[in-house]
Amino acid sequence: MSDIGSRLAEIVGATHVLTGADASEDYSHDETLTAEPVRPAFVVRPSTAAEVAEVLRVATDTGTPVTARGSGSGLSGAAVPRADGILVSFERMNKILEIDTENHVAVVQPGVTLQELEERTAEAGLVYPVYPGELSASLGGNVATNAGGMRAVKYGVTRHHVLGLEAVLPTGEVLRTGGKFVKASTGYDLTQLIVGSEGTLALVTEAILKLQPRVKHQATLLAPFTDLGGVARAVPKVVGSGLGPLILEYIDGLTMGAITYTADLQLGIPDEVRETSQAYLVVMLENRDTARLDADVQAAAELLTELGAVDVYVLPGGSARKLIEARERAFYTAKGAGADDVIDTVLPRAALPEFMAKVTEIAQANETFVVGCGHAGDGNVHLAVFQKDSEKRAKVLHALFEAGMSLGGAISGEHGIGHAKKQYFLELEDPAKIALMRRVKQAFDPAGVLNPGVLFD
Amino acid sequence: MSDIGSRLAEIVGATHVLTGADASEDYSHDETLTAEPVRPAFVVRPSTAAEVAEVLRVATDTGTPVTARGSGSGLSGAAVPRADGILVSFERMNKILEIDTENHVAVVQPGVTLQELEERTAEAGLVYPVYPGELSASLGGNVATNAGGMRAVKYGVTRHHVLGLEAVLPTGEVLRTGGKFVKASTGYDLTQLIVGSEGTLALVTEAILKLQPRVKHQATLLAPFTDLGGVARAVPKVVGSGLGPLILEYIDGLTMGAITYTADLQLGIPDEVRETSQAYLVVMLENRDTARLDADVQAAAELLTELGAVDVYVLPGGSARKLIEARERAFYTAKGAGADDVIDTVLPRAALPEFMAKVTEIAQANETFVVGCGHAGDGNVHLAVFQKDSEKRAKVLHALFEAGMSLGGAISGEHGIGHAKKQYFLELEDPAKIALMRRVKQAFDPAGVLNPGVLFD
Repeated sequence: MSDIGSRLAEIVGATHVLTGADASEDYSHDETLTAEPVRPAFVVRPSTAAEVAEVLRVATDTGTPVTARGSGSGLSGAAVPRADGILVSFERMNKILEIDTENHVAVVQPGVTLQELEERTAEAGLVYPVYPGELSASLGGNVATNAGGMRAVKYGVTRHHVLGLEAVLPTGEVLRTGGKFVKASTGYDLTQLIVGSEGTLALVTEAILKLQPRVKHQATLLAPFTDLGGVARAVPKVVGSGLGPLILEYIDGLTMGAITYTADLQLGIPDEVRETSQAYLVVMLENRDTARLDADVQAAAELLTELGAVDVYVLPGGSARKLIEARERAFYTAKGAGADDVIDTVLPRAALPEFMAKVTEIAQANETFVVGCGHAGDGNVHLAVFQKDSEKRAKVLHALFEAGMSLGGAISGEHGIGHAKKQYFLELEDPAKIALMRRVKQAFDPAGVLNPGVLFD
Repeated sequence: MSDIGSRLAEIVGATHVLTGADASEDYSHDETLTAEPVRPAFVVRPSTAAEVAEVLRVATDTGTPVTARGSGSGLSGAAVPRADGILVSFERMNKILEIDTENHVAVVQPGVTLQELEERTAEAGLVYPVYPGELSASLGGNVATNAGGMRAVKYGVTRHHVLGLEAVLPTGEVLRTGGKFVKASTGYDLTQLIVGSEGTLALVTEAILKLQPRVKHQATLLAPFTDLGGVARAVPKVVGSGLGPLILEYIDGLTMGAITYTADLQLGIPDEVRETSQAYLVVMLENRDTARLDADVQAAAELLTELGAVDVYVLPGGSARKLIEARERAFYTAKGAGADDVIDTVLPRAALPEFMAKVTEIAQANETFVVGCGHAGDGNVHLAVFQKDSEKRAKVLHALFEAGMSLGGAISGEHGIGHAKKQYFLELEDPAKIALMRRVKQAFDPAGVLNPGVLFD
């Protein structure tokens, strides 16, 4: 063990290998509600891909587990290290290497945060439109979990914006995949295979990200509906209208109450509307031209009314921003309220009402309280589960995932599997697919040192 | 051999196993200029995924090579069978299983053509926007090569529209990957790994494709520039303008002459403009509203003039359609003119002028004639190479690919590697990446029966 420590110190410098009490408690966890914190044997802070490669060679040589860490804002425990392992923290690899305004790409190191990228792209009139809500999150972490968020309905998720990677295999080879182009048909797409692999295939040391022209003007509509079925029926019509919404979120009545209360947010909705509304649809539109935006807002309001909204509110800029921020903080609101777990099942968006009916059944049958909101445009349902009894909770989660999968969905839309949802993944997913994924893992990581215990046992 | 034949006949029925002269010459080739036709030992025409699975089990049992075939319009030879092998033709698996207007997806079998999907989606007010140009192409083939085309600058390529697959492993397992949703973070993305794998990992028996709202109105601008540098400098500005062009193509002067001559197309460009213009930029815009489209056309015309276009022509609908069709037929025009090979290198779009300067140098140094056009918005350069001497031609291709890769590009943007470009792929690609891809191949296809000789030796 001390031999490993001295080899690591030789690679990154002694000040960048932390052990024992020198390694802050922060390194022992991410934001997952159910994962136990674990202090790793070593925290290593490399500054180059070459150093990462050397560290991984030591790990493969010695069979030492390696877990990568960005900002630690993950919700599935994929950044929780092993007690006998190395935590590779990318805090020093935090540079935006390039904002390329000709090719509309950013080249970033994994430790760059969404906030930093947002500021730099804004200066160039461009935007990295993936918006998982937590701006302190790192791009490395976003790539590892294929982070999504509210703007996926218009722009897609992380996967759709990663054009290329520099990635280090556990055996020490530094690969470059993809490039500053949106398409290639030149062998297997290793970029897309590494995106979303939760640190189990390779460590990403650089990402080439697609940027979009920044659209200047936004407007937000809030439409209460008497039930979630109304919201779900409205969604395809809003998408099909060609209005191209940037955001299309649903928030259930209870969650709306909680997040607006926590944020001290007055939306000016009369009591009688609030009392009859069990679900809200938030529609954000954007346009580079204010006259077009105004016309689109008008058209959207008319459409929502036709589709059965109890009323339609065009929110003033300040309230709109606060509502979106409050929605982003829904996880923290749920956590503050004592939620015991959160899930983010994804399913065909038209199956939303049927799924939510099953959720109610499952919750009632198990005396569990379940509330939520979600990315209605892409069928990604975020639910907070309140159930202290861990055995009962596991039963509820199993049933919820099973219900989602039976409707054509998948366990996680954007949080990932990590440690936290692995049990359900292994129980519910097709064994032939799991076996194939294990063989793919083996092709990348023959010694099995990258994030053991994540995805697979 | 006859034992294999009888096993295959048992699976799909004797009338759907063709051998010898019963198997049409069509099955021996695709549209690749340089691939030698090969008649397979067996042509098999399955009608279900279960039959495909049985056929693949026989292949893996007996070590018999298997090549999949859609419409045979590929340009890299990936559908050319082996003489000792089975050609699985998907001509009977040609049904559109569903146009789902709630979730905005199509579910198709691999033998469905782009033309058929276009017609069916149009009825629903939706569109599958990937437009590789050859409407007789099959969706299965498009998925296998990650087909691209002119609309990639706005909508992306096949990869970005494949949400899920039913795919059969060579060992006979039928897998379902992804689903009717745009995002998931639930294990490795097998969908994206299979897309673009040219029939070497699994056979696709069903694809879930993302559809978009169909935009009603289009307009096309044609802007001649004195040189390609002008076009290349204009492209990022047009993209950055927020006008969101559907198509952004460049056509060099010689190619423009050839395709308009072949199509007998009068664009009304005065001789003096034609004589001073070495490159043309084609910009197609679309909008659901004609007033907005008109305003965008005006804005685009002004922008192109500012950016140095010799002139800007707004093409009447008929001419515009014919020009796009003629551009689509550029491959056949080149073939008709005696081109000996075509390539479709992709590179960062800003590197286009530098690449084209190198192309000119390489062509001159090797007494070879090279002309082209391409998807300027995504840096995908289509070049026709006229050089009868195969050794000299190989030297030219190697040099062209090397030049593209040295500028951060890749060998193929959308045609694929197949047999035709394998030599260059293996010579020029990072050996560590090739070795990793081989291990991934092994994870899917332990017996090495799927399209041997494609991608790898």
